[in-house]
Parts: sequence; structure tokens; C-alpha cells
Amino acid sequence: MAASLLACGINPETSILFQQSQVNEHAELSWILGCLTSMPRLRHLPQWKMKSKQKNEGSVGLYTYPVLQAADILLYKSTHVPVGEDQVQHLELAQDLARIFNNTYGDFFPEPRALLSSTRKVKSLRDPSSKMSKSDPQKMATVNLTDSPDDIVLKIRRSVTDFTSEVTFDPEARPGVSNLVLMHAAVVGCTVEEVVRWAKGLDTGKYKQLVAEAVVQRLTPIREEIERLRGDRGHLERLLAHGAHRARELAAPVLKEVRHRVGFC
Amino acid sequence: MAASLLACGINPETSILFQQSQVNEHAELSWILGCLTSMPRLRHLPQWKMKSKQKNEGSVGLYTYPVLQAADILLYKSTHVPVGEDQVQHLELAQDLARIFNNTYGDFFPEPRALLSSTRKVKSLRDPSSKMSKSDPQKMATVNLTDSPDDIVLKIRRSVTDFTSEVTFDPEARPGVSNLVLMHAAVVGCTVEEVVRWAKGLDTGKYKQLVAEAVVQRLTPIREEIERLRGDRGHLERLLAHGAHRARELAAPVLKEVRHRVGFC
Repeated sequence: MAASLLACGINPETSILFQQSQVNEHAELSWILGCLTSMPRLRHLPQWKMKSKQKNEGSVGLYTYPVLQAADILLYKSTHVPVGEDQVQHLELAQDLARIFNNTYGDFFPEPRALLSSTRKVKSLRDPSSKMSKSDPQKMATVNLTDSPDDIVLKIRRSVTDFTSEVTFDPEARPGVSNLVLMHAAVVGCTVEEVVRWAKGLDTGKYKQLVAEAVVQRLTPIREEIERLRGDRGHLERLLAHGAHRARELAAPVLKEVRHRVGFC
Repeated sequence: MAASLLACGINPETSILFQQSQVNEHAELSWILGCLTSMPRLRHLPQWKMKSKQKNEGSVGLYTYPVLQAADILLYKSTHVPVGEDQVQHLELAQDLARIFNNTYGDFFPEPRALLSSTRKVKSLRDPSSKMSKSDPQKMATVNLTDSPDDIVLKIRRSVTDFTSEVTFDPEARPGVSNLVLMHAAVVGCTVEEVVRWAKGLDTGKYKQLVAEAVVQRLTPIREEIERLRGDRGHLERLLAHGAHRARELAAPVLKEVRHRVGFC
């Protein structure tokens, strides 16, 4: 989590980094919100549909996970939540639950809004029809923040494209190359149009090399910072303990008011 | 709760009386146990089947309530649980979850066993095919511990029986009268056979009067004790606060060990 926040440019000195499992208010608010959630409301959410199929009938924890996510958000009266496109439906559940709670127990929670990044969805390097995912069992499908430069070059060189050598942006007809263009634009901070103009005349083989170099360049300082931080376990533990303490200070009065409104005390 | 425990002969001086919502370890253990519960495991439990029909698609809280019950039991490493027959399947879930947890994370929870009372199930006075229930909307169906003697007499006099005047015990063919015999045996502490022998020669009208008297006699000291306690709100609040404190002292180390075993810390 720290790694991906650093990658987003979030500063752990001013932001609160903590492990959700260290703040027990999350589980308790989740229980209360579950009492306001109808069973069918969760049945069509994308992660349940996908993962319960993979795992052959999932657990109660998997089914109700979006309710815990809503508790994670509402417990801090969050107003904006940075999410990927695949999480928009889960955020809508948090909005619904804020509304249902407010209607039932009086105005209390703001309705949290999504902050979508301009690079909406990076696709798998092995199958550009599905998203790039940390949990993909195919190791070659995903670039990790901690990958070595050699690994990154290899993964991008082997990435699935097509039989046209030109570089164009056409996510429908050419999902593989278009995914590389999107990644490229994201890591160098340009628009898709600028990248395509710049790649004019290159074949996809050569272009993959350039994309790999740009990704390596963008990720190297992040990887080095991760390695530095991992080398200082004491610092990380203090950071998380301090973060949990600060998170509890914010969460406790919110849960206290929720408990009061629903009639627990 | 205090009232029904008193009725069971549990002494609040030696037992711990507390409100579950005051001990947040319940919600947290419930979340963890939910991750070990498969969705279909809860689908056929009797209370969900009954109440979700009444309420037209129930809530996540209702569906997962048996998991919270399992947490209520396991959080204190309970070995024996006094339950009615209608709760046996829910207790079986707690047993299953103890077993699954122990298999996954090493022996920890005892498998809790049911303590069934000899009077298994008191039936509704209006419909002897369903159980007597505090939540029955028909006020005449249920004898409450706090009912006045006049109310008890009226409810039992009006109770549904049949057109045979003799008193016999035959739950299949004569559920109404048999329910009265069971209640009678329970409140006077005799066997069904003793009660039937004793009621020989009485018609059901006269018998109802005698059952009502026996129920009034059994419940009067309980009702008076409830009234006395309700008159001393300060005492009750101190009792519950003290109980919550003692419950937390028992719950905290159990949850701490669970958190450790599942890898939260």
C-alpha cells in the first residue's frame, strides 16, 4: 500500500498510512452498514461475479467485502476517493449507504465522490482485453513496481500486440498496441496523441523497447525508494503504528456518533 | 435479556450480563469468521428462510446474523450453549466454524455443545403449529414474562384447542391441548404423564383455568423482580457497564490470539 501511494505521489509525512486491520472501528461500522444493505444489492458487483466463479462459490467475506470498503470510506467521512474504473460500482455502494444512513438516522455522512485518474485502466500484457492486475497468476501479464529493469524490458518485449507493425491508437481493433501507448503516455506525462505522433515511423518491436525504457525510467526511483524503505523495517513499523493511532483518533468519534444514532448507546 | 436469564435461574451476581453491542470484539470476530463461511452455508438456515420471506429480500445483516451468533459464542471459548430447538442449526454453524478455524490456524476453539431444556418448544396459543415467539404480531399468541395475571388468564382461556373436551397428550392430533399440557408440566416441574393423570376428568375449559393459575404462580415472582429492577435504572446501568467491562476482559485476549493466528499482527 505504501508503495502504491508513493507511486501516486502521496507523501507519508502528511498522509496517514495504516493497516485497516489495526483499527477495529472498520469491522464494527461494516456490521452496521450491512444491516442497511439488501442481499441482492451485492449480487451483481463485478468482483463478486468474477472471483466467486474462480473460487467456486465464494465466502461471506468476499460477498460482503464491498460493504467493508464502504465502511473504510465512510468511517473518515471521506469526500473524494481515488479509484480505478473497476471500483466505481463499489464506490456507488458507499454513496448509496451514505444516503440510506442519512435518510434513516439524519444527515451525517457526505456522499463520497470518485477521483478517476486520466489513465483509467492499464490492461494485461498477455491479454489486453482484461485489466492488469497484481493477482494475475500469469507473471508476464503485470509490471510490478518492484520489478528489475531487465524484467520490465522482457515483459514489455513479450507483450501481446498484433501483426501490424505501425504504432496507432485504436483500443477496439488494436488493444495490445493501444495499451502500450496508454502506458507510455501515463509514464511520460503526455497525451495519447503526442505519443502517437512521436512514435511515427517506428515498428512495434522498436516501439516496445522505447516504452520499456520510459517505464523503467519512471519506476526506477520508486523501486529504489521501496528498497530503501524495506531495508528499514523499524521505520516502517513506527510509521504504521503512528498511522494506526492517528486513524483511530479520527475513526473513534465518527463510530461513536453512528452508534449513538442507531441506538447502541 | 436479563429477564429471560432470570427466568432460567441464572444469577446476575455470578453471571456476566452485558449488551453485545458494547463489546466491539464481536463485530471483528464476526468479520473474520465470515471469511471462513461459504455463502451457500447460510442459505438454508431456518431464520433466514422465514424472515427474508416476511421482509421481502432481507438485509446482509439478517443473512450473516448466524455468523455473528457464532462469534458471540466462540469469543468466550464457550463449551455449552443453552438454546431452543429452533437454534440448533445455528449452533451447528458455530461448531463448523470452530472446526474450520482450528483446522486452518491450529487448535484453539472448543466445539460448543447445545444445552437443550427438557421443555423443547412452547407453541403459539393462536396457532399451535408454530412456535411461541416474542416477535409474533398477534398479541394473544404469546405469554410475556411481564404480563399481568389477568392477561395471562385471558390468553390461555382464549387459546386455540379443539372440540374434544378431555385432556390428553397427543401433539400430532391435538396440538393445542398438548401445548397446554407441556406448558403446565414445565411451570410446575412435573412430567407430561403426571400432568395428564392429574387432569383426568377435567374438561379443557376447566383445565385452561388451572394451567393459567399455574403459569401465573410461576411467573409472578419473575414479573415482580423485573418490575423491581426496572424501577432501579441506575442499578441496571451499573450492572451492564460492569458486565461489559468483564466481558471485554474475557474477549480481548481471545480476539488478540485470533488476530495473531490469522496474520493481522
